[in-house]
Amino acid sequence: MLYFIGLGLGDVKDITVKGLEIIRKCERVYLEAYTSVLTYGWKAALEEFYGRFDLVEADRDLVESGADMILENADKVDVAFLVVGDPFGATTHTDLLLRAKERGIPTKSIHNASIINAIGCCGLQLYNFGETVSIPFWTEDPVWKPDSFYDKILKNLANNQHTLCLLDIKVKERSVENMMRGKNVFEPPRFMSTQQAANQLVQVVRNKKSLLNGTNQNGDVKTAKDCDKQILNETSLCIAAARIGSEDQKLAACTLEQLLDVDMGPPLHSLIIPSTLHHIEQDFINFYALNL
Amino acid sequence: MLYFIGLGLGDVKDITVKGLEIIRKCERVYLEAYTSVLTYGWKAALEEFYGRFDLVEADRDLVESGADMILENADKVDVAFLVVGDPFGATTHTDLLLRAKERGIPTKSIHNASIINAIGCCGLQLYNFGETVSIPFWTEDPVWKPDSFYDKILKNLANNQHTLCLLDIKVKERSVENMMRGKNVFEPPRFMSTQQAANQLVQVVRNKKSLLNGTNQNGDVKTAKDCDKQILNETSLCIAAARIGSEDQKLAACTLEQLLDVDMGPPLHSLIIPSTLHHIEQDFINFYALNL
Repeated sequence: MLYFIGLGLGDVKDITVKGLEIIRKCERVYLEAYTSVLTYGWKAALEEFYGRFDLVEADRDLVESGADMILENADKVDVAFLVVGDPFGATTHTDLLLRAKERGIPTKSIHNASIINAIGCCGLQLYNFGETVSIPFWTEDPVWKPDSFYDKILKNLANNQHTLCLLDIKVKERSVENMMRGKNVFEPPRFMSTQQAANQLVQVVRNKKSLLNGTNQNGDVKTAKDCDKQILNETSLCIAAARIGSEDQKLAACTLEQLLDVDMGPPLHSLIIPSTLHHIEQDFINFYALNL
Repeated sequence: MLYFIGLGLGDVKDITVKGLEIIRKCERVYLEAYTSVLTYGWKAALEEFYGRFDLVEADRDLVESGADMILENADKVDVAFLVVGDPFGATTHTDLLLRAKERGIPTKSIHNASIINAIGCCGLQLYNFGETVSIPFWTEDPVWKPDSFYDKILKNLANNQHTLCLLDIKVKERSVENMMRGKNVFEPPRFMSTQQAANQLVQVVRNKKSLLNGTNQNGDVKTAKDCDKQILNETSLCIAAARIGSEDQKLAACTLEQLLDVDMGPPLHSLIIPSTLHHIEQDFINFYALNL
């Protein structure tokens, strides 16, 4: 049996009792190490807590090209694949599951919390959320500044839906130099902060505004006042969420522009762009709204 | 401290290790018993597993009008409020949390899986889902057949988003007769099956089609062929999900009309209306697609 086991939001004790029992009885246990926050020391902490010291770190290469190793004789013995959050947060895990099914290997999933549902702790109702978006790190060299997340946020707002923005994670990345030299030297992991996300979002908002400024799409002259009607702008309410589910979880609500100055501390961060608020949602947000 | 603890999807061992430790140390433990599947025997099974036999069942009355009892001296002692799934699936729990905050009672949430993220196990990518909808039990006497879920599904489809439909649950309901007599006699719990949901959905689809038939909104005569272009119709692909996360979880994919004849077994059921499928999503669904 190949088990896909969700580890929850980041504390070793977020594993379910069922998941823990399975991990302890499996012949091999792999730890997914490329879609989320597995900082140094995390693997050792898990091993200590599980009472087994043979977890195999599975980076992207292992899962995508070395799936054979993970799947080997999993039809005869129990193998576990551990995933931070819930097992089905990322396409890559689905891919591994499909490979198992194609080989007739039985699989089972042990679910857990992921940011997709845990974000309900910010006080916004989950059923009012639209499509989840991802905000990637922009680069200067080469210039790569995709902004499709902006359009998706706008679409959600037009549908009167909140948007959860997942912020980029760079783990086990190699510099162009090291890649060209064929060196397996990895850059330190990077996790986008809500400040960085807000910065990119403000830039997109300003670009769109300057495009609007002067003339609109019909060629009519637009006034500054028209531009203020932009559905998402610097004064829009945003919610910053940090380390959801951990002891030092932090929430902050303020305008997009104010968010540029709010340090939310260590990763992981998420950003929420709320749509129109229900009064219970508003009451809740008032408890952590910043008065900057 | 008032703890909100998610129990996960239904097995006693779905509790997290952290949640279990807290439950065992709390002075009072309440078990939310009105928004989800707490069938007979479940409370006893939880008590057995937790090793404490004093869980207080909290029905809607207790939480909404008797919140004082739950919150009593929670600023001094530890109190736990247990919720099936994740703590923030339902508005009522948010309301309790707000009352605690208003009284300055510190709170903490222990997250867990809920259907909102666990539904990823059907092979559809979570970030491709639009707004979650609820399908309520229709009644004949009085006639009450709301169909706003249909419009929401259509909106999601127009946005190229899948729809998760949560199916109605009736727990601790009283008959009109018993209510009038002031008797606290409760009807047996009812859980909507995917067959019942499909039946209501087919009726809505047919009603809309007959409205379209003959003339469209512009008064033009429409042919039967035009009606077949309806974005959601009897031949649309649907996914039935039953008992997600349990040992006997079941998935089935077929047309909406075929779903009328598919018995998915005991509750809880959910229904998914997929939008356009990515090829990985299609590959996955093929593993449980029915050939009726």
